[in-house]
Amino acid sequence: MLRQDINDLLTRTGPGTPMGELFRQYWMPACLAEELPEDDCPPVRLKLLSERLIAFRDSHGRYGLIDEFCAHRGASLWFGRNEEGGLRCPYHGWKYDVTGQCVEVPSEADNSSFCQNVKLTAYPLVKIGDVLWTYMGDPATQPPLPEFEFALVPPEQTYTSKRLQQCNWLQAFEGGIDSSHVTFLHSGGLQNDPLFKGAKGNEYNQNDKKPFFEVADSDGGLFVGARRNAEDGRYYWRITPWVMPCFTMVPPRGDHPIHGHFWIPIDDENCWAYSFDYHPVRALTAAERQAMIEGHGVHSENIPGTYRPVANRDNDYLMDREKQRTGEYYSGVKGIAIQDASLQESMGPIADRTKERLVPADAGIIKARQKLRKAAIALRDHGTTPPGVDPAHHRVRSAAVVLPHAEAFLDACREDVRVRPGMPIASV
Amino acid sequence: MLRQDINDLLTRTGPGTPMGELFRQYWMPACLAEELPEDDCPPVRLKLLSERLIAFRDSHGRYGLIDEFCAHRGASLWFGRNEEGGLRCPYHGWKYDVTGQCVEVPSEADNSSFCQNVKLTAYPLVKIGDVLWTYMGDPATQPPLPEFEFALVPPEQTYTSKRLQQCNWLQAFEGGIDSSHVTFLHSGGLQNDPLFKGAKGNEYNQNDKKPFFEVADSDGGLFVGARRNAEDGRYYWRITPWVMPCFTMVPPRGDHPIHGHFWIPIDDENCWAYSFDYHPVRALTAAERQAMIEGHGVHSENIPGTYRPVANRDNDYLMDREKQRTGEYYSGVKGIAIQDASLQESMGPIADRTKERLVPADAGIIKARQKLRKAAIALRDHGTTPPGVDPAHHRVRSAAVVLPHAEAFLDACREDVRVRPGMPIASV
Amino acid sequence: MLRQDINDLLTRTGPGTPMGELFRQYWMPACLAEELPEDDCPPVRLKLLSERLIAFRDSHGRYGLIDEFCAHRGASLWFGRNEEGGLRCPYHGWKYDVTGQCVEVPSEADNSSFCQNVKLTAYPLVKIGDVLWTYMGDPATQPPLPEFEFALVPPEQTYTSKRLQQCNWLQAFEGGIDSSHVTFLHSGGLQNDPLFKGAKGNEYNQNDKKPFFEVADSDGGLFVGARRNAEDGRYYWRITPWVMPCFTMVPPRGDHPIHGHFWIPIDDENCWAYSFDYHPVRALTAAERQAMIEGHGVHSENIPGTYRPVANRDNDYLMDREKQRTGEYYSGVKGIAIQDASLQESMGPIADRTKERLVPADAGIIKARQKLRKAAIALRDHGTTPPGVDPAHHRVRSAAVVLPHAEAFLDACREDVRVRPGMPIASV
Repeated sequence: MLRQDINDLLTRTGPGTPMGELFRQYWMPACLAEELPEDDCPPVRLKLLSERLIAFRDSHGRYGLIDEFCAHRGASLWFGRNEEGGLRCPYHGWKYDVTGQCVEVPSEADNSSFCQNVKLTAYPLVKIGDVLWTYMGDPATQPPLPEFEFALVPPEQTYTSKRLQQCNWLQAFEGGIDSSHVTFLHSGGLQNDPLFKGAKGNEYNQNDKKPFFEVADSDGGLFVGARRNAEDGRYYWRITPWVMPCFTMVPPRGDHPIHGHFWIPIDDENCWAYSFDYHPVRALTAAERQAMIEGHGVHSENIPGTYRPVANRDNDYLMDREKQRTGEYYSGVKGIAIQDASLQESMGPIADRTKERLVPADAGIIKARQKLRKAAIALRDHGTTPPGVDPAHHRVRSAAVVLPHAEAFLDACREDVRVRPGMPIASV
Repeated sequence: MLRQDINDLLTRTGPGTPMGELFRQYWMPACLAEELPEDDCPPVRLKLLSERLIAFRDSHGRYGLIDEFCAHRGASLWFGRNEEGGLRCPYHGWKYDVTGQCVEVPSEADNSSFCQNVKLTAYPLVKIGDVLWTYMGDPATQPPLPEFEFALVPPEQTYTSKRLQQCNWLQAFEGGIDSSHVTFLHSGGLQNDPLFKGAKGNEYNQNDKKPFFEVADSDGGLFVGARRNAEDGRYYWRITPWVMPCFTMVPPRGDHPIHGHFWIPIDDENCWAYSFDYHPVRALTAAERQAMIEGHGVHSENIPGTYRPVANRDNDYLMDREKQRTGEYYSGVKGIAIQDASLQESMGPIADRTKERLVPADAGIIKARQKLRKAAIALRDHGTTPPGVDPAHHRVRSAAVVLPHAEAFLDACREDVRVRPGMPIASV
Repeated sequence: MLRQDINDLLTRTGPGTPMGELFRQYWMPACLAEELPEDDCPPVRLKLLSERLIAFRDSHGRYGLIDEFCAHRGASLWFGRNEEGGLRCPYHGWKYDVTGQCVEVPSEADNSSFCQNVKLTAYPLVKIGDVLWTYMGDPATQPPLPEFEFALVPPEQTYTSKRLQQCNWLQAFEGGIDSSHVTFLHSGGLQNDPLFKGAKGNEYNQNDKKPFFEVADSDGGLFVGARRNAEDGRYYWRITPWVMPCFTMVPPRGDHPIHGHFWIPIDDENCWAYSFDYHPVRALTAAERQAMIEGHGVHSENIPGTYRPVANRDNDYLMDREKQRTGEYYSGVKGIAIQDASLQESMGPIADRTKERLVPADAGIIKARQKLRKAAIALRDHGTTPPGVDPAHHRVRSAAVVLPHAEAFLDACREDVRVRPGMPIASV
């Protein structure tokens, strides 16, 4: 349970809010690279951290993320002509480059310097892996580029999707570090999903419904360890890393690709869920990639031409009471991603945490909120750079291991939870 | 015309409001029994008096009406699994019984008493007739169960439907005690509707467009008498009983079944209109029942799978100007229920009574508002139990009679307006 | 750039606002005559200056514009029966004539004078040309009827349409006195539109993208002159008259009909764009009229049975990126009217003028805002009748002329910009 003011602090990310400033310390996904597939392609409207922006890719392959609205009279540059090295407002022809600099105001004299003084808010936009990343903070403190493993492996080893989630980022993120719901909500998926099923670990997952949680600090955030009983004298540990503010990885299952998420605030009542799958040492198989495209695993089937799931709030997520009854879909909703989205959205646009009732199994959530709050306040009051900004903090992995009762999970897995290029992931 | 503060008092029914507290003194319809047709069937989302609730029927046939949201982290129990004697949240498996008591938290130790301290707000839910009734007030003052005749006669003699009305409850209710609009708005229905037409009384109803109103107190509310001229030295009286806060009965016509309504606040801008038809001494005929199912009489044709009328605000109630012109539908809208709904909704989500201009024909409305206000204030200030709580107050009937000029309607009809099991209704 | 308080002053037109009072000094279009095509036809719901009204045409051909809601209990008179010389509320039969006077309350005694004291707010509604005009101000200061030339020429010489625009009136109006955007946004239309193409002037329009603006006061508002280079020692002048508060005319092209607009506030976030085309000395050809009906020129293709454009905010104005690329539609949006609407709506429901950055080419807009502000304040503080109320101010024309460099546009065109019945327009 949180006080209202703390809930407000953690969930509001617009300009000038403590949590908004915290997010603005980090590189974060702005859109998928596939949304700007070629030079001079149509610009893309985005809202990020409550700011309305336009992403575009100019004639020379440069990416830009700029204020959506023309500096002249405020028309949307989504109607802009992306041509000849810039984006031109079609109302009176004002033109901007990828840095937001106005480079032409046709009504002005040819020798006028007027446009030099016109510059839109702009943020860097950089392709790493399948994602275009931005940094929306002070240019003076721009950190080095992100180094998350899923974005650095060869393209054939990785796949990223995104979907609109119609709720605040925090309740979505909290699902990502909450290993205990898997046993219930996703129990059908463990049996049937092509990207989940068949692992030995799934049995441990299903057989022990009372996981014990241990949470350890990491340089960039936390490692959340969920312990379940395994055979004689051993525990099955699922280790979920969190890198601040909103990167998580699901612990692996057998040789399946490993997956994880970012939850990026659009505004205070909507977020983008980015979902990736990668394998550190081999290409994804054609069947795996096809399953991801079809919305299996952590991905979703989206309405064509959009990133909104087919099963969404407006159609009650295509609730199927018969499959709920049989247990094929534990909650009646199809697919792991939509199972999460449906329940998280059902909490309301911004979950009211003054009414919740947490238990020991929520240890990861409790610890993460504390870290977020502490970091946001330290930044606000002292300008302290928060954990997770340093790219070294990004080089973490999840793990699923079986350990003797006596062993501490993080001591035993210290190497497993670090990125070791070319080395397989620790998985059961 | 009302002062703004009185209009606010009468129309606001959320928790803690005087009118909300008044409603919470009564048993009232929560949903139709058909919405929970069998044990372990899907739970139903309801909003009542601005509270979001879940109704369900457990494995043992017990009905429950509980807070919509899981006590743990606030996921909606609409996604719940209704099984093994309770409703289980599919997120982390917390389980509740029909009293709202948490009976299982899987992550807790088997011998934990944690869940004993977790209890959701819950209200009783009881089947009487075709309706499931609830009482949302203090358990210490829970009154005996309701005794409305329509709900107590054998099933073959009664039929109840419901429909969403998109306005405040009060303006909907006011239509129910307003006998004078029938002559205009429903004049087509008097001629054509299979559940209305053919009665001798209809002629009186149509021929005298200046009814005179007399309003008399009853134990539970009011009797509103509307007097119209009949043959030599006689009056045609239509007597509408109101039992507080929102039960009314339409005066009968010939041997047609008798009908009435409840208007139950969903929130301050929406209500459920419950419409019943019954005959005190005989089974409804197959033709009558079929007409009700098809939306004739006081019932409506609803969008399949919902309780929203096919003709609604979003489609201008399927306005038919040609049939308006011919008079088949006096207002251009088809059906008695939708004629009422369309005009009442057109007054706005909450009618602005500071601008109205009442006339003597509105005597019933004026008196009813006074009683509601007085009762709400007496309850708030002195804890006075309001009229209509005592089930004895429920045992009233409407009547339509022809009386000599000299006779006072209530003196003459004292017996007619009481429920007398096995005795027919007084009707012309 | 405007201060927030000035932006508020110019954009808010509800009852009691300074700009709302300004609008209430003028006759202005309430609806098209085609919306009330015959006696006793269905009444029409209108919102004007944030007031909800009903327009109707009674059994005797009289037009009325009255409060939407019945004085009795507030039901919408849109459901009214338009019959026997008045509009009758179908709820209890109260009846009103075109002056808003209640002429019958059926429940009252035959000799009652009650209804004489019941009168709805009402405004005059007068047909001139294809438009029904109203005046929503104090009857004591009602000015003579409007004398705009498009409404006074014979019917075969004129055509008027309207469309819903989903933004504040001011940003829509500002497009109408902004000659500089034509070169960009409408460059495709100059080439292809049957009601625009082929004029010699179009070449000047396209070849000089740096028009120089001169703005001159007129009795009723402004003449905005846009000067572009023509051949040796000559300028091409396009002269746009504005009559306060919201009448503008587009400068002509060759022998095409001449067009113009009114922008009438519905509420603060929506307006009606009225678009007319007329020829002062000849009938419109069948081809011209057909093109207008189909939505060419300044007109739009609307959703059948409505005045909402087919291409609108909800479908991204049917953006066509391929035609944007080829330049057939410069902004990717089809049609001159929708090109304007799309960009103006993209500025938001009420453009935030505290952030804009005006240039010399915006001289007309700057001057017009100053005049509006001054007039609204003079009216509020001193009761000063604003420019444009006097019908003599309405008798203006736009013009497109080629003049020697030395000549001042208004000196040279003094006669051209006045209505001279039977004389052609000055056009290149």
